[in-house]
Amino acid sequence: MKAIVLDSFGPADVLELRDVDQPEPGPGEILVKVHATSVNPVDAKIRERGSAYALEPPIILGYDVSGVIEAVGDGVDDLNEGDEVFYTPELNAHGAYAEYHVARAENVAFKPQSLSHEEAAAIPLAACTAWQALIDRAGLQAAETVLIHGGGGVGHFAVQIAYAAGAQVVVVGNPDMEDALLELGADEFVDYEDDAFEDTVDEISGGLGADVILDTVGGHLLAESIPSLARYGRMVTIVGDATGDLGKAYRKNAAIYPMMMERGAAMLDRIALLVDNGQLRPLIDRTMTLEDAADAHRLIERGGLEGKIVLTP
Amino acid sequence: MKAIVLDSFGPADVLELRDVDQPEPGPGEILVKVHATSVNPVDAKIRERGSAYALEPPIILGYDVSGVIEAVGDGVDDLNEGDEVFYTPELNAHGAYAEYHVARAENVAFKPQSLSHEEAAAIPLAACTAWQALIDRAGLQAAETVLIHGGGGVGHFAVQIAYAAGAQVVVVGNPDMEDALLELGADEFVDYEDDAFEDTVDEISGGLGADVILDTVGGHLLAESIPSLARYGRMVTIVGDATGDLGKAYRKNAAIYPMMMERGAAMLDRIALLVDNGQLRPLIDRTMTLEDAADAHRLIERGGLEGKIVLTP
Repeated sequence: MKAIVLDSFGPADVLELRDVDQPEPGPGEILVKVHATSVNPVDAKIRERGSAYALEPPIILGYDVSGVIEAVGDGVDDLNEGDEVFYTPELNAHGAYAEYHVARAENVAFKPQSLSHEEAAAIPLAACTAWQALIDRAGLQAAETVLIHGGGGVGHFAVQIAYAAGAQVVVVGNPDMEDALLELGADEFVDYEDDAFEDTVDEISGGLGADVILDTVGGHLLAESIPSLARYGRMVTIVGDATGDLGKAYRKNAAIYPMMMERGAAMLDRIALLVDNGQLRPLIDRTMTLEDAADAHRLIERGGLEGKIVLTP
Repeated sequence: MKAIVLDSFGPADVLELRDVDQPEPGPGEILVKVHATSVNPVDAKIRERGSAYALEPPIILGYDVSGVIEAVGDGVDDLNEGDEVFYTPELNAHGAYAEYHVARAENVAFKPQSLSHEEAAAIPLAACTAWQALIDRAGLQAAETVLIHGGGGVGHFAVQIAYAAGAQVVVVGNPDMEDALLELGADEFVDYEDDAFEDTVDEISGGLGADVILDTVGGHLLAESIPSLARYGRMVTIVGDATGDLGKAYRKNAAIYPMMMERGAAMLDRIALLVDNGQLRPLIDRTMTLEDAADAHRLIERGGLEGKIVLTP
């Protein structure tokens, strides 16, 4: 089968299209014909320094799949050949920049019926990250105020999940995305260069502060957001390089969750329900072919995209 | 009445015994004849730089009380003159280094019957801090492993609360305290100079790591403890200067709680129950008189105490 393989870590040039053996599903696994995958920031991070993820080349990247089950391994009872599924592969050496992918059955959910494969492939990793951050970790509830740093892949799903949860949503992002994010459910948009989110949060929360703050950007943003946090507020960061003096949040009796998304079909089932209810949809900047993976990486590293990049084999 | 007053922030010398007006209880308040108070590290911090706590001299320090109700204000129905009570005063300008103290009724609980006033006064602030950290914030449960940094005022109560909760307890402290902390319920004691808590936690938890880590010491200890944390473990710090790269805890999907104790009778009622059940008792290094407050501060700043310092008027 065709796949994009990297033989060493480095710049986008290391991504190479070639023929590799088609994988076979073991017990508890399924073989999926990949109809679409998508590019996430973590792809470029692993490509650049995969040893930090305990990975060794050769590696196939790609952590989103929408496709059709081609075969099921022993012990898989609830999935069948021909089922349309979507999921986010484990971060191992066998990602989904390929024509076929083998997945553990417990990570796989039925694709939302209302979406094409290209649309569905833009969802799993980013939407599960947003879901786990806001729902599982922060326990976001109706009438709470949430401040979301970043309106990109994870951020634009977070806006929609927070809106669906009945929260008041302030998102700090790229001004090119303002209209789209307001359309998706944000109550207030703040240009990330203006640094004025404190005033906006103060106003929308009646001075109580944000009950939940989600950081998808990193650096000092989380520490700088502490003054905008409500008492007993919760802060979640999905980026490992959150820095700054988080201990200062003791004055707020904060809960801080530095998180790493963990896969599971149950979460995807909820997300698929939101999608089919018309409450969640992906923004797609463009669709490219697998051959263009290196260009896709250059685009995501440059930033300023207005949605996900989808790749089709 | 006699009280220890400070007119400016600074070294222990600023603490001065003098006569001041006896306070009167307003609506919802009670007047308590202080039989004993105790010294906590926060007393010395406020004495040194109280402006960080938004306090202005003149100030009476002292955030533990065991005493007898002398009078009740309007609207106080559940407390009566003559009741023996214990509590931790709010961090305001009117602490308990004095013969009388006025408190809000909702912060006050009945003194454990099995203790003297001197013993009871050693409990409220430190035990409530330990309770809130382990129970309210970390949700410590039976069969979990807890790592406690520091076996001092808060730490020695944390050991007992964790033991009462059915947890396996590792405490890192001063070797002078080893026997006492093992006697109070610690399963393992680690000398804080040995830095060997990783191995001890690993062994007692069967390699899973500590479900809960409580930091009563500060500095880089919390960040350095991340490798000893279990997946989805909870870390609580009660010191505002916890530093280091806490974001790295994302690999553990940690919950981090930088906390500030908040008062309440409900928590003290639970603590009194533990005391009267024989499950919690204070270690008291020595009892001094109010006149000796400055010496007591010098002792607590020097460190190495083997329990609380109690002051009696």
